[in-house]
Amino acid sequence: MAEAATPLRPRDERPVLALSGGVGGAKLALGLARILPPAKLTVVANTGDDFEHLGLHIAPDLDTLTYVLAGLDNPETGWGRRDETWSFMASLEELGGETWFRLGDRDLAMHVERTRRRKRGESLSEITADLTRRLGIATRILPMTDGCVSTRVRTPEGLIDFQHYFVGLKCAPPVSGFVFAGADKAVPHPDINQMLRRPDLRAIIICPSNPFISIDPILALPGLREALAASRAPVIAVAPIIAGRAVKGPTAKMMSELGLKVDALTVAAHYRGLIDGYVMDDADSRMAAMLDLPVETTRTLMQSLEDREHLARVALDLADRITAGTGMTRATDAG
Amino acid sequence: MAEAATPLRPRDERPVLALSGGVGGAKLALGLARILPPAKLTVVANTGDDFEHLGLHIAPDLDTLTYVLAGLDNPETGWGRRDETWSFMASLEELGGETWFRLGDRDLAMHVERTRRRKRGESLSEITADLTRRLGIATRILPMTDGCVSTRVRTPEGLIDFQHYFVGLKCAPPVSGFVFAGADKAVPHPDINQMLRRPDLRAIIICPSNPFISIDPILALPGLREALAASRAPVIAVAPIIAGRAVKGPTAKMMSELGLKVDALTVAAHYRGLIDGYVMDDADSRMAAMLDLPVETTRTLMQSLEDREHLARVALDLADRITAGTGMTRATDAG
Repeated sequence: MAEAATPLRPRDERPVLALSGGVGGAKLALGLARILPPAKLTVVANTGDDFEHLGLHIAPDLDTLTYVLAGLDNPETGWGRRDETWSFMASLEELGGETWFRLGDRDLAMHVERTRRRKRGESLSEITADLTRRLGIATRILPMTDGCVSTRVRTPEGLIDFQHYFVGLKCAPPVSGFVFAGADKAVPHPDINQMLRRPDLRAIIICPSNPFISIDPILALPGLREALAASRAPVIAVAPIIAGRAVKGPTAKMMSELGLKVDALTVAAHYRGLIDGYVMDDADSRMAAMLDLPVETTRTLMQSLEDREHLARVALDLADRITAGTGMTRATDAG
Repeated sequence: MAEAATPLRPRDERPVLALSGGVGGAKLALGLARILPPAKLTVVANTGDDFEHLGLHIAPDLDTLTYVLAGLDNPETGWGRRDETWSFMASLEELGGETWFRLGDRDLAMHVERTRRRKRGESLSEITADLTRRLGIATRILPMTDGCVSTRVRTPEGLIDFQHYFVGLKCAPPVSGFVFAGADKAVPHPDINQMLRRPDLRAIIICPSNPFISIDPILALPGLREALAASRAPVIAVAPIIAGRAVKGPTAKMMSELGLKVDALTVAAHYRGLIDGYVMDDADSRMAAMLDLPVETTRTLMQSLEDREHLARVALDLADRITAGTGMTRATDAG
């Protein structure tokens, strides 16, 4: 009763590196994690948003990635944990404490435990590795640095710490630029450079995160941009703008305030010299011809798990085609 | 339609000072707070139990007093808050954090806020004053010191930090003594001495707390025992032992391990030279004659609010009779 053998493509065991911020980036990171073999994905997380609040080390992007990859995220808010309770905040309010930054009871354990272990001398990357392992996450989530980088937003009222701008002021002040304080002295986590030098690295994916506040802090780390350029693996960015709008968050508002045209092309231009390929939404396909690099267009809005996996496959396929030097949907070919 | 005037005793506006630990002491403190005019009661709280846990400053006796006086206490446990939720602990457990010391979500706000404000440079007494005011407590809860005193328990296995002995080891190791580390260098809160010098101080009440671990740390502060002795107000202790048993906690077990007879007399002997009067339970009335100081016997078990108020009245009445030099139930008179 022999059956016809289905020809199987051998599983691609090459590692993949992704650069990510919070919400949007984490969606694609989850897609990548689901289609790649276990432990083949390393996600480098922006830590420029990190800040000390109530004496606790809060790392919003690390936490969003952790919760998303552990299946513990709150899909309604995009931050924090699902099935959350809020007794701590209610009690803190009674005591006259600072409540502008919402910390759920379950979420709080992450901040307290991280802070305790950092005080004991453990590095942020060691702590993250252990806590994500305990939550059953096979993907490696790597803080971009164990040092301290603090994103500040330049506004007419002066420089504002990122979380105060983002949460406290709800992104209201118009933005004229960004400062990544400490980035010049911070060292990228050594495993990032080590991965970038691997000859078998399959792809470097820049997730559809905010380029200015989620990806640029990573790129601001000394030597990292050069190390990305020197890597043999293709660098693929996924556009965070669809038909002139950001799916979530202040990307479009910021671009507009910075005097930039709010479209996927502008983001590609922002990454010029760094990326080898670009994935943008079908809605923006008319722009593909305007880019002088391999472009793939597809549905980039990630609503379902299948959307996440699909976009991850498209980005990796583009990388593989660039590596093979064949079958590219080159914008210039189409032009 | 004139009614017959009820002769009213003019309200006694003199201040009262109480020394207290947690559970048992807080019950009497509540009784005192309810029968005294607002803001006339100051409760000096033991802080020898304080410790740093998860990077947070935990002050068990201060918190129990605060929750009891605010009506927020959990009457079943004797510690923590009522209507508590436990999401933080559940999440901390997932992360492999230390869970031997239970911290409820609402309770946690107290520790986080206290720790944050201490780091900012505020003193424990300033923070306590503000937080208790916000919870609507008219009574002043005063930490015995703004310095650091750490109670350690001497056992065959060596000195053990109090909370590890009390919560972690559930008081299992036999006790041979206590060390109040830092007490020799700590300064009693200056307002304690100031109150003790007031000519109108009505009474100093030593609450029915554990003498060894709740009251002795207070008495170990430099000059405090002398200041109590020098005060014009009578010092009244309320026995924490009823018919040879402690109502709650390890007092009886400790006395037994220290080679002491477990009864109310032994506690009175422990306070010899310090107290001017003693309140003990009716069950122990036969012992009253054995004490060479004014004694009052009454129901000392505090189950209802009325019990708490009644015991507070008895203790204050004894103090008033000692001050007046009349009407004392002197044990020696009865003998």
